Amino acid sequence: MDAVGGALSMLHWDMSAMMPSGGADSRAEQLATLTTLRHAMITDPAMADLLDAAEADPHLDPWQQANVAEMRRTWVHDAAIDADLVDAMSRACSACETTWRSARADNDFKAVLPGLEEVLGLTRQVAQAKADKLGVSAYDALLDQYEPGGRSAEIDLVFADLEGFLPGFLDDVLAAQAQGPDILPLEGPFPAAKQKALGETFMAALGFDFNHGRLDESLHPFCGGTYDDVRITTRYDDDDFTGAMMGVLHETGHAMYDQGLPKDWRGQPVGSDRGMSIHESQSLLIEMQACRSREFLDYAAPLMRAAFDGAGDAWTVDNLARQATRVSKGFIRVDADEVTYPAHVIMRYRLEKAAIAGDLQMADLPGAWNEGLEAILGITPPTDTEGCLQDIHWYDGAWGYFPTYTLGAMTAAQLFAKAKQDRPEILPSIAKGNFAPLMGWLREHVHAKGCLLSTPDLLTEATGEPLNAAHFKTHLKARYLEG
Amino acid sequence: MDAVGGALSMLHWDMSAMMPSGGADSRAEQLATLTTLRHAMITDPAMADLLDAAEADPHLDPWQQANVAEMRRTWVHDAAIDADLVDAMSRACSACETTWRSARADNDFKAVLPGLEEVLGLTRQVAQAKADKLGVSAYDALLDQYEPGGRSAEIDLVFADLEGFLPGFLDDVLAAQAQGPDILPLEGPFPAAKQKALGETFMAALGFDFNHGRLDESLHPFCGGTYDDVRITTRYDDDDFTGAMMGVLHETGHAMYDQGLPKDWRGQPVGSDRGMSIHESQSLLIEMQACRSREFLDYAAPLMRAAFDGAGDAWTVDNLARQATRVSKGFIRVDADEVTYPAHVIMRYRLEKAAIAGDLQMADLPGAWNEGLEAILGITPPTDTEGCLQDIHWYDGAWGYFPTYTLGAMTAAQLFAKAKQDRPEILPSIAKGNFAPLMGWLREHVHAKGCLLSTPDLLTEATGEPLNAAHFKTHLKARYLEG
Repeated sequence: MDAVGGALSMLHWDMSAMMPSGGADSRAEQLATLTTLRHAMITDPAMADLLDAAEADPHLDPWQQANVAEMRRTWVHDAAIDADLVDAMSRACSACETTWRSARADNDFKAVLPGLEEVLGLTRQVAQAKADKLGVSAYDALLDQYEPGGRSAEIDLVFADLEGFLPGFLDDVLAAQAQGPDILPLEGPFPAAKQKALGETFMAALGFDFNHGRLDESLHPFCGGTYDDVRITTRYDDDDFTGAMMGVLHETGHAMYDQGLPKDWRGQPVGSDRGMSIHESQSLLIEMQACRSREFLDYAAPLMRAAFDGAGDAWTVDNLARQATRVSKGFIRVDADEVTYPAHVIMRYRLEKAAIAGDLQMADLPGAWNEGLEAILGITPPTDTEGCLQDIHWYDGAWGYFPTYTLGAMTAAQLFAKAKQDRPEILPSIAKGNFAPLMGWLREHVHAKGCLLSTPDLLTEATGEPLNAAHFKTHLKARYLEG
Repeated sequence: MDAVGGALSMLHWDMSAMMPSGGADSRAEQLATLTTLRHAMITDPAMADLLDAAEADPHLDPWQQANVAEMRRTWVHDAAIDADLVDAMSRACSACETTWRSARADNDFKAVLPGLEEVLGLTRQVAQAKADKLGVSAYDALLDQYEPGGRSAEIDLVFADLEGFLPGFLDDVLAAQAQGPDILPLEGPFPAAKQKALGETFMAALGFDFNHGRLDESLHPFCGGTYDDVRITTRYDDDDFTGAMMGVLHETGHAMYDQGLPKDWRGQPVGSDRGMSIHESQSLLIEMQACRSREFLDYAAPLMRAAFDGAGDAWTVDNLARQATRVSKGFIRVDADEVTYPAHVIMRYRLEKAAIAGDLQMADLPGAWNEGLEAILGITPPTDTEGCLQDIHWYDGAWGYFPTYTLGAMTAAQLFAKAKQDRPEILPSIAKGNFAPLMGWLREHVHAKGCLLSTPDLLTEATGEPLNAAHFKTHLKARYLEG
């Protein structure tokens, strides 16, 4: 990550994890100024010639070629829009995100509607400008920011396939779960300090380098900072420690990717992560594939009992495993299990495509959201706080991001299947709290690659085939119907 | 504060209060890049003409005139040095500060000597370049960065006067103290969380706006951030809560100044603080003048007892007041009482003048330090950690800063004397935990002025006379010999 980008990332982390609300105006000014300076540096008039010359150089090795290709990609995205739009976008996103925080708390969508309309209007301008340069649709131009080379035509097919599979599968899982033993509740309270200590124990076991990162709290958990200083966050609920625990494991998966990126290419574009579907595959591989496994709970249950003085039937590995794989229809995406999660994503993906196309007005978002969730999961949120106000994404300008979550879930299943095949000791080691075999495989096949390969090529080199939804379905069937 | 300056300030705060050590290299890169970008913005070729035109405008009101004058001042300082020197200085300071943290912990001056020599070498280049433009000595050019218009010829006179007064006075105080009642120790431990809660209680009483700031921990306590988001830090000792408590009160004095600067001029040079002697006067007025008074302890003692379950003779107001005004010769400046503090400053001031003049080599610093403290206080630090490694200042490039501490102490005494004269209810109100009369006076006469007036003019408008050391001496005599 470049130095100005790193500074921006730190200021964003601070805004979410540390900043008092009265600092919002100054912070918006700082972010807009740095974003505009960074844009000016990348779109410097000399840059086009420099890129042409670099691309014509016949002596570049594959890493250097990939590095130049990433520079070109960044330049195309940045040069498509002018400085005024960059500045306006940064300010609108900061302002809207600030308003969203209180609107979400107050269940007051109308309060944030003008800000959201402004963000969407500017986003559509950005999308159209980039679409013209990239030769893709407006939505795909946005998607390309997060998932380089990703195209909605392919995602439509994948999501249609999942939508054909999931509803019937979900019915089967819920029926099977209803016939199984009751899931016993874990009695709190669970003090935040103890939850944090437990989370840090797991982070250390996974290999998180605390010399190059830290764990804090924020309203919307995320992984930020820079590759040398990875800041992850979670949020604590005194009545339920499992949410924060799984959140920490999820963000640690992201963090291990960042900390494992190629050190020889620090600060260079090719030394960055490959994009959001690979990034999300790393968090979901850790959280969903590895850490909801029976083996992980064999290792973790004694630590959980020790942390909270847990005793009795609710704290057995059997019950904890049922807790970790409980499936239910809920309103909140970040709390969703891996069976219902794609429904949340598919619904959002369709809404954001419609909004970018001009077919959905933001004033109609609450209704469209509630209808969408009713259609895909059969439930309707009682409030906007549990509906269209729950996610930060659209309010802070992240349009075209949502599909990467489910692409990431499918990628995680495919990578984990191959990793276990290559190294059968992975799950038995996790049962002893040893993540080294798994992390070694990920370091070699994913983390150390940076941006050397495209997403499909990275996946093919690692697993022998491009993205194949069969692995995700196989995983779900094995865990939820054959477990 | 401008947006890039604000971003830099936040990144500095994070570096001291949050950053894991492995983030140091990336952070140094971020700081150097932003510092260089800021320098380029200020020294843009168009700026000289713009300043000339603004200065020639006959229609400016006094605030606008002062604003242009501050712009000119910043421009003269920045235009005196080129971008390469700015970049080199930023990198050298970041690297040296990082090394200092471990060298201080390890009592290993040699480890940081090369870094310190580099910082000093670059500082001398900066000083000479600015001296040529300002028409002052190299040392005064550095001093002028922190104390606009400050000159060492005047400081020499003030410090000589103090040096004539203090040694004899100190002997008298120590003799009087030896004849007084024993100071009973406060038995700990004092958990950091309880210390923090007590500190926040006092911050709130002083009027600190937590919507525009926060309290954290760092190795070297400071007040940073921006005027809209003031970040203060302290450090906690489980065996003694009074150090952190007085530290929080001190930094809150700084913070109240920042939060009270004129809101109409936010982001403009004239909306900034007047310089470090006024800034330090605000922290010392709160910590030393107001919060070591009998009246403050009448209010605070019950809160202190409640915070730590304190009971018995050690927790009486009488004993707590003796604690708060105990005088002793010590090695550590930041722990020094107000009688011995000027000795620490005068010693450092002479050393840094010699270093900038080329008359003191850094390899000789430990010896010169120990000789200097022996000469002025009659004690010799047993280690460099308690000697020349104790302060961050020189290692992070702050040369010419030290005298402002003692100028601030004298200014604090003068302002507080006038404030009490203008509003006799100030001390009786503090006894009830009500700081509004004091803070109202400071807001009106100091905080709201920003950079409208020079330091001497500000002081004369507020108190009727320029800096007069008699007020400081009167205060010391009243508290320590006649109390």
